[in-house]
Amino acid sequence: MHNIPSLIDAYIATWNEGDPERRRTLVARTFTEDGSYVDPLMTGAGQDGIDAMIAGAQQQFPGHRFELAGEPDSHHDRVRFTWHLKPVGGEDVVAIGHDFGVVAEDGRLRSVTGFLEQAA
Amino acid sequence: MHNIPSLIDAYIATWNEGDPERRRTLVARTFTEDGSYVDPLMTGAGQDGIDAMIAGAQQQFPGHRFELAGEPDSHHDRVRFTWHLKPVGGEDVVAIGHDFGVVAEDGRLRSVTGFLEQAA
Repeated sequence: MHNIPSLIDAYIATWNEGDPERRRTLVARTFTEDGSYVDPLMTGAGQDGIDAMIAGAQQQFPGHRFELAGEPDSHHDRVRFTWHLKPVGGEDVVAIGHDFGVVAEDGRLRSVTGFLEQAA
Repeated sequence: MHNIPSLIDAYIATWNEGDPERRRTLVARTFTEDGSYVDPLMTGAGQDGIDAMIAGAQQQFPGHRFELAGEPDSHHDRVRFTWHLKPVGGEDVVAIGHDFGVVAEDGRLRSVTGFLEQAA
């Protein structure tokens, strides 16, 4: 088992990284070349596809940040974790996500599936 | 999108089916030929492997039943749902599982990953 907490911290940081060059570097650190992402609102395939998808999400929801909620839960090559979307500088939870991932042998994410939950 | 609630009902029924012939029929209805299952305690590959794994689990935890908790949540070819393990005839929740599945084009499960949570 690789260092799952570090991987998921880097994954969350990727979604929060506004600088295009640093974001693309983080995508390459957290996703395999053939990595993929799918949730109810968007999909991305390959590192460039995932980077473009995250850039689009950042433009669509400006002024917000993702925070890991609790610890990642993992076994074998699988991981699940929950995140909260909050306004920058605030603690209101705007949206909740439950992400499920498959980790490749090199310790990067091969696929992530996101499920969204309306904040109460 | 196929009928996800029916699929997940059949999946739960498979885990509860004590008759070997009916259980094997349910496995074939709910999993593809190359289907796989993995959770922290056990793994099964292919319909025969999954059937043997469930038979073993039933022997290990006799006198219990699985119940779906809430509605399955699904998008694209992905589904997640939660189940409770209870003693037959009782309502105490002994264990909680969070299952994540990938659905094949024919509407059966191609892979299921289970995560376990200790009941409070």
